[in-house]
Amino acid sequence: MENPLKRIWQGSGTAHGGWLSLRDDFAASVMGDVGFDYLVVDMQHGLADYTQATRLIQAVGHSDSVPLVRVPWNDPAIIGRVLDAGALGIIVPMVNSAEEAAAAVRACRYAPDGARSWGPLLAARLHGAYETAAANDSVLCIPMIETAAAVAAIDDILAVPGIDAIYVGPADLSLTYELPPAGDNDGPFVGALETIIDACISHGVVPGIHANPMLAAKRRDQGFRMVTVSSDDQALVQGAAAMLRAGTVGDL
Amino acid sequence: MENPLKRIWQGSGTAHGGWLSLRDDFAASVMGDVGFDYLVVDMQHGLADYTQATRLIQAVGHSDSVPLVRVPWNDPAIIGRVLDAGALGIIVPMVNSAEEAAAAVRACRYAPDGARSWGPLLAARLHGAYETAAANDSVLCIPMIETAAAVAAIDDILAVPGIDAIYVGPADLSLTYELPPAGDNDGPFVGALETIIDACISHGVVPGIHANPMLAAKRRDQGFRMVTVSSDDQALVQGAAAMLRAGTVGDL
Amino acid sequence: MENPLKRIWQGSGTAHGGWLSLRDDFAASVMGDVGFDYLVVDMQHGLADYTQATRLIQAVGHSDSVPLVRVPWNDPAIIGRVLDAGALGIIVPMVNSAEEAAAAVRACRYAPDGARSWGPLLAARLHGAYETAAANDSVLCIPMIETAAAVAAIDDILAVPGIDAIYVGPADLSLTYELPPAGDNDGPFVGALETIIDACISHGVVPGIHANPMLAAKRRDQGFRMVTVSSDDQALVQGAAAMLRAGTVGDL
Amino acid sequence: MENPLKRIWQGSGTAHGGWLSLRDDFAASVMGDVGFDYLVVDMQHGLADYTQATRLIQAVGHSDSVPLVRVPWNDPAIIGRVLDAGALGIIVPMVNSAEEAAAAVRACRYAPDGARSWGPLLAARLHGAYETAAANDSVLCIPMIETAAAVAAIDDILAVPGIDAIYVGPADLSLTYELPPAGDNDGPFVGALETIIDACISHGVVPGIHANPMLAAKRRDQGFRMVTVSSDDQALVQGAAAMLRAGTVGDL
Amino acid sequence: MENPLKRIWQGSGTAHGGWLSLRDDFAASVMGDVGFDYLVVDMQHGLADYTQATRLIQAVGHSDSVPLVRVPWNDPAIIGRVLDAGALGIIVPMVNSAEEAAAAVRACRYAPDGARSWGPLLAARLHGAYETAAANDSVLCIPMIETAAAVAAIDDILAVPGIDAIYVGPADLSLTYELPPAGDNDGPFVGALETIIDACISHGVVPGIHANPMLAAKRRDQGFRMVTVSSDDQALVQGAAAMLRAGTVGDL
Amino acid sequence: MENPLKRIWQGSGTAHGGWLSLRDDFAASVMGDVGFDYLVVDMQHGLADYTQATRLIQAVGHSDSVPLVRVPWNDPAIIGRVLDAGALGIIVPMVNSAEEAAAAVRACRYAPDGARSWGPLLAARLHGAYETAAANDSVLCIPMIETAAAVAAIDDILAVPGIDAIYVGPADLSLTYELPPAGDNDGPFVGALETIIDACISHGVVPGIHANPMLAAKRRDQGFRMVTVSSDDQALVQGAAAMLRAGTVGDL
Repeated sequence: MENPLKRIWQGSGTAHGGWLSLRDDFAASVMGDVGFDYLVVDMQHGLADYTQATRLIQAVGHSDSVPLVRVPWNDPAIIGRVLDAGALGIIVPMVNSAEEAAAAVRACRYAPDGARSWGPLLAARLHGAYETAAANDSVLCIPMIETAAAVAAIDDILAVPGIDAIYVGPADLSLTYELPPAGDNDGPFVGALETIIDACISHGVVPGIHANPMLAAKRRDQGFRMVTVSSDDQALVQGAAAMLRAGTVGDL
Repeated sequence: MENPLKRIWQGSGTAHGGWLSLRDDFAASVMGDVGFDYLVVDMQHGLADYTQATRLIQAVGHSDSVPLVRVPWNDPAIIGRVLDAGALGIIVPMVNSAEEAAAAVRACRYAPDGARSWGPLLAARLHGAYETAAANDSVLCIPMIETAAAVAAIDDILAVPGIDAIYVGPADLSLTYELPPAGDNDGPFVGALETIIDACISHGVVPGIHANPMLAAKRRDQGFRMVTVSSDDQALVQGAAAMLRAGTVGDL
Repeated sequence: MENPLKRIWQGSGTAHGGWLSLRDDFAASVMGDVGFDYLVVDMQHGLADYTQATRLIQAVGHSDSVPLVRVPWNDPAIIGRVLDAGALGIIVPMVNSAEEAAAAVRACRYAPDGARSWGPLLAARLHGAYETAAANDSVLCIPMIETAAAVAAIDDILAVPGIDAIYVGPADLSLTYELPPAGDNDGPFVGALETIIDACISHGVVPGIHANPMLAAKRRDQGFRMVTVSSDDQALVQGAAAMLRAGTVGDL
Repeated sequence: MENPLKRIWQGSGTAHGGWLSLRDDFAASVMGDVGFDYLVVDMQHGLADYTQATRLIQAVGHSDSVPLVRVPWNDPAIIGRVLDAGALGIIVPMVNSAEEAAAAVRACRYAPDGARSWGPLLAARLHGAYETAAANDSVLCIPMIETAAAVAAIDDILAVPGIDAIYVGPADLSLTYELPPAGDNDGPFVGALETIIDACISHGVVPGIHANPMLAAKRRDQGFRMVTVSSDDQALVQGAAAMLRAGTVGDL
Repeated sequence: MENPLKRIWQGSGTAHGGWLSLRDDFAASVMGDVGFDYLVVDMQHGLADYTQATRLIQAVGHSDSVPLVRVPWNDPAIIGRVLDAGALGIIVPMVNSAEEAAAAVRACRYAPDGARSWGPLLAARLHGAYETAAANDSVLCIPMIETAAAVAAIDDILAVPGIDAIYVGPADLSLTYELPPAGDNDGPFVGALETIIDACISHGVVPGIHANPMLAAKRRDQGFRMVTVSSDDQALVQGAAAMLRAGTVGDL
Repeated sequence: MENPLKRIWQGSGTAHGGWLSLRDDFAASVMGDVGFDYLVVDMQHGLADYTQATRLIQAVGHSDSVPLVRVPWNDPAIIGRVLDAGALGIIVPMVNSAEEAAAAVRACRYAPDGARSWGPLLAARLHGAYETAAANDSVLCIPMIETAAAVAAIDDILAVPGIDAIYVGPADLSLTYELPPAGDNDGPFVGALETIIDACISHGVVPGIHANPMLAAKRRDQGFRMVTVSSDDQALVQGAAAMLRAGTVGDL
């Protein structure tokens, strides 16, 4: 049981990922064929509930992508349940303080590193032998930095032991600077990203961000090493539109 | 209650469609944004069961695409149930004779034109006032021509009153000529398409076919006027691969 | 294991029933509180699929109403499955000949009376000891008479051994006389009902019909002894409208 | 994107609503035909889980009633998820202090008014263009006042900016005065309602209450302007009982 | 893509199997750990519907047991759908004639050997490259012999090309000899098994039977080489009862 | 409405229970036949979500075993929902202080004993008349003692009014003493159990523990009076393995 994302990052590579908003495990399997380093089941703004999340995690777990879950909230109950289902990392929304970061870590790790409860029925089936030390080492705890308050507290947050990476939510981050909820923005948004990157470098934490194909190169240049470039609902609409266009050109 | 596909065909246009293999109604809504003339819920080789099909039909019914269903078999029970759910046309697999075509028509039409049973709970909600004559006029009955036997019987099949269009399944048709199950083939497959098109023209039936973006122009040139150019699972994989490629280029 | 409807009919009483179009087992439990002699899970025009039907049957089975199922079609597979789930009677759509009636009976009865296959997992749990002779005796086989063809063949149909009752579908029956699909009609519809009732009396079969509160007395006067007077979706809209009206009167 | 309830209340009208305890989206559509100003998906004591709630919200959203949700608890995760699904207002149980009220507001509003996270996939589909300012303006935040403690703190609670209305839960409120959990009571319950109404008037907050047809006029006289008069499970039982009675009268 | 059961039978071994009546894919995974040569998803008397069957097939497909499905009826629609989902064999109830056996074969094989329709979405994902010839070779067609009529027609049935094995349903077979629906019986039941075995040997078809641990040795001695010895619901009750007994002994 | 576990404990008997990790209500019914005093729906490490938990509770509620639920976390929302669904007791994970224990009690009891909210739709249907005092008396509040911190605070925890029993989670408890997550351990684990038992005796609280058949006698000797001896997934694998072994012996 090992987490391939850790190997990528140890080699100072960048992990590119996809996002799962649909609740269809066949769609998740299809996304698992594409070659993403990781795929994130989004239980906050995506459609999967717990049961469907377990199916999506299993579908990704049978592919070559690493199954991560964005939980709906910094809540040990759901973090534990999706880790039990086989997620190899948890993206936690709206972490604004060291206390909240520590709570996220605690929910991701078995004692003595945290307070995760034992009972990995599906995870043990997916990953083979499941042991507490190996699980603590393999499971990524990834708080989201998505408010001005979190940026202000970034050094405290990153000083919490057990944070593997952080994940910037650009839309929500923008809103707290009174900017529109977009994937990129000017103004204070730019400085916020710089602050985050600098802090990540100094604390040895991997900086991640929600992006898209057009923004990916810019984000890599800025120093992000976990870059989400696609989501299933957007891939579907773009793929279908491209196919329809290609199939009707000359006809319309 | 009117079927926009009829208008396209009366103006001798070509209808371009998409295929729904996933069982996620949000994915169906997304496909409904793309601009397909019709979207087909595939209950034969796709994943939707009856309950999920009702949701997909409703999702498409709230878009600008016409909701069709490919039923698992030429079976009046499931034809009736998906029409009750709001489908505006039925694609019926493996229709090989006039008798089988007549059975398909019978299942699609209320008396005196057929033997469909009354009870359109969801369809009435989706399409507003639902009356038997209007429904008989709006609902498309579309047998699949996908065996050598069906090609041999094509004139008998098309002579059955109430056939609006036919739909060629190239993979299955190929198999019956001992060719691989592909979207296109040489040899007897070519002549079979010609036979079908000629018969459709002489009987005033719209010829349709399962295709893809590369084959669409060829199919239109051959005379097909109902051409499926995309499916959700293929759109998803192509869209996601394109996004991943675009998002990583220069990095790998 | 006994069927209370048989007792009502042996005493020449009339059974009054309700119809379940929703797919919510809590709603079925609520309907089970009301006092209907029977409740029919409608798998033809209602929304329940097989899994949900098993839940609705169980919900009704725990009430004082007898659980019946209207299957989607005269198909031994689904008849067997819902009997296995605990239905105490099957209403079979579109039975137009003695052959079709015999097929329905065969699907409802274990050998030597028919060809039902053994395996009543849920039914045995619901009804206690489950034996083939008792089941053959308790399970009602109820073909629908809902076409002019069926009326013409009524004597042949009712002569088939094992028919306990018939059930008139007035909307479909009307359509075959080129009348609108309503619960009641004039013209040939009237004579058709008389023919059906007379044949039922002479063959000792209980005549049943789909009705509503306004039609119930008329139907009883005509001789029907199985009269459906409500459905869950209509009860819901009428109950809610009455409550809203009562709660706003004087205010609007 | 506008909330019709706001218009009713600006004109000093009273909004009358219905309650959804079932988990069937067809039932919700049926309730949407009846004419309620709002319909509340009850995720606390009703049966819908998150997935089914998304379906119920969509069903109501396609009707003329405003979709509200009573969440199971004052929890930003579920509040965000059902707003993302298209709810136009949130009823929050057991709000007993200004702090709790402020937390509810925060979960309902995007920054800078709160901390709701961006990602309205289904809501944007249902309501068209979805913008943060318009959403903050349209989404109603409605704490429940249902304990003696809440009544004692009513002025503090109503002073929290962003409270659009409050909703009295009479059963729970009664319990905290050691009265039975009924829709109406004497004793301290009467004074509590007066206190609540007076505070609502002085703070310009709409007072709402869970009621029934018999209590509605009394509640309006007391000053309540958001009055729930029906629930789907009660409507079902009353409607079915009325239909059965009407259909059997003279027979029993 | 190969079917391990064929290897067992080519080496004249006996395959021992389990039966899946529950609808829980985790339970199917657990059964897949036990070491059965095959596991049969029972869609006739078990609880799985189509969607759940696809999940059970996938769960078994990820284990070392071969996934088979007992379909509800000899129906090409459902046979095709569960083969598409990855089943490596189909057990078909109530096959009583050569015609019915030929229909079962036709539904299991692609042209030119049959009329199965192409579209193995999930099967191709589970089994890797999926080709028509290999699929025709790997998929087992297993009619049930479970009536006196089938025994009388056994030579005709087994002469149909493409029958890999037959499967005796002892309960239903017993009923047609007017014996109780048990796993074993005396009288004509004994001769029927002999007739079946003899015919299987002379036609080179593998004889299979539904059994239990107590009957297995007897069945092997009689010549059966496909012997089902357990089902999940019986295993559950026996395992739980044994654990409860072991955990309370000395205490009660 | 009475809780049979209370009677067992008043007579100083020991209650033996089973654990439900599967999400299949038929499996729960099967477990309900076995004779366990209680059956626990595990929503923390088992697979049931809320909807499925309601079905499992109902299935157990129709058996002779008492339905309990282990909730995912000490959260009043889910505690209220499963009590509304008919659970007669709640096992609450990771209760480490008197404050947390008091919160658990508060969620389980109606005012004035707590803050549970009124609305027992399914519970009232399952248990008949449902009144607040009787419910407060019947529903068991059972915190889990599964950390060294909880053992250190055991007297404070047990002094909280309304704690009926505690339940030791040996795996998690072991982890906090840096022992492997097993059902039994040496070292500080032994003393921890003694401390717990002693405190239970002195506070009149029933001590419970998660065990297995081999450990049960030892646990009873230690003084535990609520002993879980089986789970459905383990019963399934053990029962199936035993049946397979018995059915193949002599053959392999």
